[in-house]
Amino acid sequence: MSSPVNSPAVITCKAAVAWAPGEPLVLEEVAVEPPKPMEIRIKVVCTSICRSDVTQWESKAQPDLFPRIFGHEASGIVESVGEGVTEFEVGDYVLTVFIGECGTCKHCVSGKSNMCQKLGLERKGLMHTDQKTRFSIKGKPVYHYCAVSSFSEYTVVHSNCAVKISSSASMDRICLLSCGVSAGLGAAWKVADISKGSTVVIFGLGTVGLSVAQGAKIRGASKIIGVDTNPEKYEKGKAFGITDFINPDECSEPIQQGWGLTVTLGVPKVKPEVSAHYAVLLSGRTLKGSLFGGWRPKSDLPLLVDKYMNKEIEVDELVTHDMPFSRINEALNLMRERKCLRCVIHMSEQ
Amino acid sequence: MSSPVNSPAVITCKAAVAWAPGEPLVLEEVAVEPPKPMEIRIKVVCTSICRSDVTQWESKAQPDLFPRIFGHEASGIVESVGEGVTEFEVGDYVLTVFIGECGTCKHCVSGKSNMCQKLGLERKGLMHTDQKTRFSIKGKPVYHYCAVSSFSEYTVVHSNCAVKISSSASMDRICLLSCGVSAGLGAAWKVADISKGSTVVIFGLGTVGLSVAQGAKIRGASKIIGVDTNPEKYEKGKAFGITDFINPDECSEPIQQGWGLTVTLGVPKVKPEVSAHYAVLLSGRTLKGSLFGGWRPKSDLPLLVDKYMNKEIEVDELVTHDMPFSRINEALNLMRERKCLRCVIHMSEQ
Repeated sequence: MSSPVNSPAVITCKAAVAWAPGEPLVLEEVAVEPPKPMEIRIKVVCTSICRSDVTQWESKAQPDLFPRIFGHEASGIVESVGEGVTEFEVGDYVLTVFIGECGTCKHCVSGKSNMCQKLGLERKGLMHTDQKTRFSIKGKPVYHYCAVSSFSEYTVVHSNCAVKISSSASMDRICLLSCGVSAGLGAAWKVADISKGSTVVIFGLGTVGLSVAQGAKIRGASKIIGVDTNPEKYEKGKAFGITDFINPDECSEPIQQGWGLTVTLGVPKVKPEVSAHYAVLLSGRTLKGSLFGGWRPKSDLPLLVDKYMNKEIEVDELVTHDMPFSRINEALNLMRERKCLRCVIHMSEQ
Repeated sequence: MSSPVNSPAVITCKAAVAWAPGEPLVLEEVAVEPPKPMEIRIKVVCTSICRSDVTQWESKAQPDLFPRIFGHEASGIVESVGEGVTEFEVGDYVLTVFIGECGTCKHCVSGKSNMCQKLGLERKGLMHTDQKTRFSIKGKPVYHYCAVSSFSEYTVVHSNCAVKISSSASMDRICLLSCGVSAGLGAAWKVADISKGSTVVIFGLGTVGLSVAQGAKIRGASKIIGVDTNPEKYEKGKAFGITDFINPDECSEPIQQGWGLTVTLGVPKVKPEVSAHYAVLLSGRTLKGSLFGGWRPKSDLPLLVDKYMNKEIEVDELVTHDMPFSRINEALNLMRERKCLRCVIHMSEQ
């Protein structure tokens, strides 16, 4: 499984392959091609499981994109680099990011959108550059997910879909910054721009929601109301700044009032339509969308890594389980059954 | 029909009464009660017709609110004042406003919403203070509309639902500031806060849309795209700043792209649900609601009146028809058939 540094060959390694929607992943031997121009191949060290990995794995909306390798919150080490890559060297420690940042398209230079026109959210299970896969099993292509596919010992990503991190970072914790924690902090800081004394309501107290709470607390919000149907979330929530807890199952009437800004984060599990009666908008309410907390992934993620290294933000407390790669199905089920916040998969442990 | 200044009596006058949804208005003799505490009775001079008068007149959603007197864009003269009113005197020239501003509730002091908690949008056809009507025909109550009901020679409004204007103002033009023109300018200036060099797209080029265009032009927007299914709107639009015109009936594919802010204004004719696929929000798009352009009606409307008096904003060009009160049904039909911008009804002309 070794590869010459200067002329990388195909690697054969273990990956957790989804053969059909919702069916248990199967640890398979997959072939991972060398990185093409501007790509890097990464040895995944740790990958945490995000709710959207589970949502997409269960979804029957794109049956043609199986077999597929999920996973998009990962830390790793650069194993080889493709032609033209100057930013990374073999041995660099990296975080993957699921939306890239080319730095030159209209969106990247706008300061108003982080949805890169060249390397934005990838929905076809292919690499951005050539619309092909880098994974295969016996010659049959295996699809990517979010241009990351970290449920594999090795993966190939575009060099603009990764950021370099310090080798002293805790690889098994910092992977949470690849998506969930950053999305929540960004929603609080960049998108909602919460100010001191604000009242904040957070619907859903998973990793992302708790990270919004943390962001709101750091900004000095005076009231941080957590809404979740799971009453056990209140205790955990307090540690992240939740001051009040509402269980919608115990409410007899709607609780919203006043003006305000609503921020949507990420991808809904069930209903992809956002709808509202126009009357709720008349008092000046605002609905604002976001992905990855509005952060420019390449430009901004290093700042969050620094904050973690300086202990300015909490990440470790969100990890409820650590597991070897071999138990990845158990980890997916914990997420599906709402029994975890983040499960971290340690790829080298079997 | 005269009334002693200090002890106002019931006035009997002509009003255009809607007896059932969409049925032609009937000019009836109605009794108009004296103003109650903090109310004023107004001799309506001119009322222009807004699309939402027509929408509500045609709507079958609230059949119990008939008979009803519509109209909410009006200029007039104070005929009598109720107990406790110190702001107005008999003979003052006024504009009505369809949402009041008490100045003391949580919303009024917030600076974040113009939807006064005491005098906000009235939907039951009654006066805010006592939930009764001031109009009747042979003892049978006749419902109000938007707390204004200006399709009547005399009407009663809360003193916080009117603003004083100069007696030198053109009463037959300035009434457009009561709703449509102000809503459009406010959407451009206060809600969207359009900046120099912006690209602005306006869906629907009626009085409100053209006023958005005017607001955008004054702010220095470099591209102002008007969207309307009526190709005749382009010529009129140019005068208000429209630089490009799109007829959706001639488009074969969706035209939206990029990030951006969408502002909703007023009340939809057809579908009260606003809905969107979550994916359109991911790039950071924002949906922001507004009513009356976000203006605080009592505090801000005088500034717009000044701008009109100083010829800083265009209003007259939006008036396409002037008609006597007796032809009000003709005016409603012009609006229904999209053959006018604003029709101004002159109440004293028969």
